[in-house]
Order: sequence, then structure tokens, then C-alpha cells
Amino acid sequence: MHAIEKLLAKKAGKSSVKTGEIVNCEVDMAGINDLYLQTIKSFFEMGAKKVFNPSKVIMFLDHYAPPSTITQAQNQKEFREFCWDQGIELLMDIDQGVCHQVLADKGLSYPGEIVVITDSHTTTHGAFGAFGTGVGATDLAIILATGKLWFRVPEIIKINFEGIPARGVYAKDMILNAIGQLGADFAVYKAVEFSGSALKHLNISERMAMCNMSTEMGAKTSYIQPDEITMKFLEQNVSKEYEIFYTDEDFKYEAEITIDISDLKPQIAAPFSVDNVFDISKFIGQEIDQAYLGSCTGGRAEDIAIAASILKDKKVSSRTRFIIVPASKEVFLESMRRGDVQTLVTSGATFVTPGCAACLGTHEGMLASGERCITTTNRNFPGRMGHASAQIFLGSPAAVAAAALEGKIVDPSNYIN
Amino acid sequence: MHAIEKLLAKKAGKSSVKTGEIVNCEVDMAGINDLYLQTIKSFFEMGAKKVFNPSKVIMFLDHYAPPSTITQAQNQKEFREFCWDQGIELLMDIDQGVCHQVLADKGLSYPGEIVVITDSHTTTHGAFGAFGTGVGATDLAIILATGKLWFRVPEIIKINFEGIPARGVYAKDMILNAIGQLGADFAVYKAVEFSGSALKHLNISERMAMCNMSTEMGAKTSYIQPDEITMKFLEQNVSKEYEIFYTDEDFKYEAEITIDISDLKPQIAAPFSVDNVFDISKFIGQEIDQAYLGSCTGGRAEDIAIAASILKDKKVSSRTRFIIVPASKEVFLESMRRGDVQTLVTSGATFVTPGCAACLGTHEGMLASGERCITTTNRNFPGRMGHASAQIFLGSPAAVAAAALEGKIVDPSNYIN
Repeated sequence: MHAIEKLLAKKAGKSSVKTGEIVNCEVDMAGINDLYLQTIKSFFEMGAKKVFNPSKVIMFLDHYAPPSTITQAQNQKEFREFCWDQGIELLMDIDQGVCHQVLADKGLSYPGEIVVITDSHTTTHGAFGAFGTGVGATDLAIILATGKLWFRVPEIIKINFEGIPARGVYAKDMILNAIGQLGADFAVYKAVEFSGSALKHLNISERMAMCNMSTEMGAKTSYIQPDEITMKFLEQNVSKEYEIFYTDEDFKYEAEITIDISDLKPQIAAPFSVDNVFDISKFIGQEIDQAYLGSCTGGRAEDIAIAASILKDKKVSSRTRFIIVPASKEVFLESMRRGDVQTLVTSGATFVTPGCAACLGTHEGMLASGERCITTTNRNFPGRMGHASAQIFLGSPAAVAAAALEGKIVDPSNYIN
Repeated sequence: MHAIEKLLAKKAGKSSVKTGEIVNCEVDMAGINDLYLQTIKSFFEMGAKKVFNPSKVIMFLDHYAPPSTITQAQNQKEFREFCWDQGIELLMDIDQGVCHQVLADKGLSYPGEIVVITDSHTTTHGAFGAFGTGVGATDLAIILATGKLWFRVPEIIKINFEGIPARGVYAKDMILNAIGQLGADFAVYKAVEFSGSALKHLNISERMAMCNMSTEMGAKTSYIQPDEITMKFLEQNVSKEYEIFYTDEDFKYEAEITIDISDLKPQIAAPFSVDNVFDISKFIGQEIDQAYLGSCTGGRAEDIAIAASILKDKKVSSRTRFIIVPASKEVFLESMRRGDVQTLVTSGATFVTPGCAACLGTHEGMLASGERCITTTNRNFPGRMGHASAQIFLGSPAAVAAAALEGKIVDPSNYIN
């Protein structure tokens, strides 16, 4: 069996599972974010009164942090009251940040865990050997009521990234390249395992970005087998006991794909789909109105550090604004400790509250008609970050920071020391 | 004559002016903020083509920094294009902060200046011996076209604050007390000069807060005669040449009011008007949902420092959120230099982008129905910061920070070291 199958079997109380089987699993952590007030409504509509276990429920006020409309404020008020009524102590209020980063910061993301959140990018937690997946309000309400959710045991695809990434090439470039090659619907309902020699060069932040973006090829969940890099992070951050599962040597993947990244150039997903991917060279000189560094994909301390190294003692282009959204409170604090916030604000960057901000077009950095934005986020559909005619280019933190400096898309390789 | 009259006379090219006279004055600095796109529309509608002098026009993208709706983004786009077309270099984009603080930071607020902005709290610049006043779009458009604006020479009232402020009592408490005594319409179209022995104990930040709030008693402009404290600030911050005007000894004020602040307690303006002012003791124990420190009234580095001293090594109450909005980029940088941002974020405070944020109910910290907020801002009308049933209590930075700590209104005097 695959590690994911063993994990699902364990949580279903079974000795084995097979592809396509429906299993009913215990959920270790159920997360609701402030876009999904319907979860609470559904919970009561289905006759539930008390959540199955308040310590396994976590509430994230991240999409509207802090609220920019009265409706958003009303929703958050209802969430808080639900938490207080139900004894849910893991209320991550507007000071905390994006759900996926907050879980990692707090040591709540670990191997062998099933984590389900009302957020499509819950695949992020594959970076820790967890089974993470996003669901809608009704499914999450069922977990709140019963502690369990059914899953179809997914087909599993292995993507091997082989080689050493060149200067200026990051996990974001690798995963964009894969999505470009394979398509946005490549892995619908399937699990994607990332492996290969290149992963030895990716820290936890980059692995989170890679697993996060697996959603953009349709994946139900993603997985990276915990290794020395994972263990080092877990030792420092996770106090909980956990079980690491390993894939049997004779396991047959539905498909195994190998991508040699030795010669990979920085990548860009151009408007208006995530699989519209090209070498950045195609867009060199393209003027940019807004550079945006943030989100659960690309707003970590390491990402901000890359931007600071590029902007240090320099200024953001006068015709471009540079918005930076730390993924979490801890990221913000770490970036201040490193002096990166100070460097970037001095350079002309605008910091906004840790959270989802403009990534999904809610607030704090919306685009006007026809504007062009280069961003570390995960989606570039029409209207994703504001006006439907605005153009969104997805790239790495280095590509975003270099564009902020020059006011146009450039090859970030030339800006990395 | 009064210093204000001499200032107006000079700018009108006259040797003297008298109360009630209409004078046409040259404006030294004309500011437009992003709430007032109509200014640009009016400018073109009245047949103007080029601004009178691009170096005397300043554009502030502060109310929507960064934009939370597509409309806000569209407005800012039009403002930027206007600046680029007109050669206006003083484009204060979304990274800069609230107009009044930005002017002070950049040394553009100085004695003898006439500064007119599409913002009612332009009275703030009286703290520097400037004549500052807010106007609407049409008046500002006339300045853009001609460089001049007419003013009625105002009646002038002198308010003397006498005594030494007690521990935990600030300029905000003094001015709230005065507004409470005198009423919100006390000084409509009149000028208010602040004087008295207590001013020796007020730094520039506090004087700005005092002059800022003169708007809330209806004042057209406010004035503090430049003294050693002013001069020290000006020497460090202003490179421009300027002229200080002095009031003649025989000048007759319309009224002269003396307020002994020796025994003044911390003040609160309770819902729903700014002149509904009481000693804070009346509200001790009142639970608070949101504490808010920011705005052109109370979001300076000294204000943030007070909050940091109160919250250091402590936590914001679990039932209260604490939103902090540095008034400007420079304030944010200074507060990071002092370590105050780090202290406050660690304590559970939420920092948002320097700007106007939720002060006027636009975004970034809106209130839900029935919620109670204590804030350093300047207005507490129904719906000012969100839902019309939300209750807003105005107080000093110390009162706000102490309430954030305790989750309820307390006497800040007990929290000051």
C-alpha cells in the first residue's frame, strides 16, 4: 500500500484499503474559515447541537482579516460566538494569518494526520506527510457533528522532480512547470506524491508551496514522504505524537512522471489560467502595475527574505506598487526579526495584515480594469483579484520582487546574489 | 492682528485684514485624497487643463490603502494617471499613510503655510503654526486651476489649557473635555487657538491630536503659536524657509476660555456624538469587542509606544481584538525601530496598512451589529466604523491600550508606569 492508503486505513479502523473504496475516517483536525459561515448553519440545520470534540476543531478568521465590510464583520461575530458557545479554544482571530501557515506555525500539521478545512488549498499539509484536503460547508458540518468524513481512496500519481534547481528557480517554478505540462485537470480527485532528488533542495516553505499548488492540477491531496528536512522541522515545532507511514516497495502508482528541472528557467503562469505556463523570458519587459507577495502559497518568511535581498537599499519602481502579506503573525514577527519588513517598507513596499487579503479578490490590494499584477499566489482566473479585465501573472517570490524593483517582468535569476 | 490674520493678509497680498472680510489667498499646498475623485472631474468640468503648479499639489491614496473594492482601485488608478499626466510628483501612494501625518513626516507642514486638503481634519496643521483647512471637491478644483482660494477671515477664539496633566492624561483627554464643555458646534467657521501652560507638556504628536480634534467643535482652522517644542521639530524636519507670524498684544479674541486641567481625569466621548464626554470612571467595566489605535488623531509613534508599554509581556484580552494602524510609513518604521510593533504583535495586536483604515468605516476593522469599540479616532457617529448599532467610545491611546488588555474599559492611569 501507499503511505496515504495506510494512513486512511488506520483512520478508518481497517487493516487495508484499496483504490476506489469508500472509507469513513476519523478526522484529526477540522478547520473552518470565515468564508464558510454556512458550515455553522448546516451544522444546526442537520440537528446537531454540540461539536464532536472542541479540541479537534479550529476556526480561522483569515479571509476577512480584518473585516472590510459590515457583512464580513457580522460573519466573524457569529463565528466567535459559535466558538465560545461550543468551547472551541482554537479560535484563530484576525491577528493570526492564513489557516495553512497558522497550522504549521502552531505545530498542528504533522505526519499521519487527517486535516480537513473549508479551503481548497488544504493539500498544503502533504508537505508534512499529512492527508490534507478541502471540503465545502456540508461536509465540514458533518465532521463537526460526528468527527468523521467519508473519502474515496484516491488513485495516486508520483511526480519526480530530478536535478538541482538553478539560481533563481524555486519550488513555485517547478510546480508551475508541472501544471503547465500536465494541465489544470490532470489530477482531479487523485492524490499526487512529490518526490525526486530536487526535493532535497527544497525547505519546508518551498514544499508547502509545491503541495499547495497541487490543488491547481485538481489534486484531492498531496504527499511528500517525510525525510530529514521534515524531521528537523517537526522536532522544532511539533510536540504531539505522530506516526509516519511508508509506501510499500511494490506499490503501483497510477502514473509516474519525471521532470528534469536541471535546466528549468523561472516560470510564469500567464492570464487567465494556472496551466498557461511559459518560461519567464516570454514576458520580459511586460510592465506591471502591482507586485503582490503573499498568500498560503508564497507569503512565508523565506519568501519575504528573498524579496528583501532583492530590494535592499533600492526602491520599488515609481509606477508599481508592491504589496506584501505575511502568511501569518509568526511570519510577520520572524520577518521583523530578520529586518526584512524594515528593509522592504523603506524600499516602498506596503505591508497588509497577515491573512488572505487580495489573493481571492476580497480586499486589501484589488486590481482596477486592465491592470497587470505579478503575484506569488495560486490562481489567475478573470476577476480573481479584482476587475475581470485585470491580468494576473503567477510567479515565484523572486520573480515578483524583481518585477517590483523594475516595474516590469524581468528574469529574477539576474537579481539573486 | 492675530497671527492667523497676518498670515491670511500676507497670502492675499494685503497689509491687513479684518474679521468677516473675504480674502483671496495663494495656497501653498493643495492636497487631494482618494475619497475625492470628484475634484479631478470638477477640474476638467470647469475647463481647466493644467494644474497651476504641480509642485504645490499633493495626492494622497490613504483612505483606500490598499483598495478593498474594484471601485476604490479604479479611483486610485485615475488619480495616478492624473498625477502622471500633470507632472505631480507628490503622489503619496498606498505605502505612505494618512495625509496629515505624511505632510508632517515630509517636512511639508510649517509655520505661515496655507494648506488646504479635501479632508476635514486639515486643522491638524495648526500644530505647526500653519493655516490648515478642509474643503470639498469644487473648492479644491479651483485651487488646482488657479492656485488660490477665497476665505472669510474667521472670528478667533482662544482656549487656554492651564496646569500639568496628571499621569494617564493626554492632549486627547484635554480636547475631548473641551469639546464636551463647549459643544460640537461651538466654533463653526471660527478659528481656535490653543494656548496655556499645559501646552508645554505636549509634544508635537499631542499637539497634532489637539488641533486635529478642533474640527469636532466645528473649527475652520486651529492654531498653536510656534514655541521651543515646535522649533525643535521644525529644525529636524523642515528644510523649507518659512515665516512665523505673531499675534499683536492688543488683539481682541472673540472669546477666551480657560480650562484648568490639573485635576482632569481620562475622558471618554460616548456614543453617539463627540461632545457626549464624561470622565472615564462612568464606563469602568464596560466590555469592549474591539480596541482600535490609529488615524490622523491617534496613530503616531508616541501613541503606539504608550500601547506597547501597557501591553509589554502581556496579552490582549481573548474576547477583544486590538487593531493598530500606524498613521504613516515613517510611523510604522519608527515603531519597529523602537520594538513596539514587535511587542504589540506578540501581545496579540493586529497591524493594518498605514492609512485611514476603519476610522471612517471604509475597510480593515469594521464593526458588527451591537459591537463596542474604544478608539483613538475622532468621530463616533452611528455607523462611523461599520454597523449603525455599533457603539464607539473615543479616548486616548492609553485608554484604548488598557481596554485591549483587560477586555473592558478601565482607568488608564493605573496602567502607566
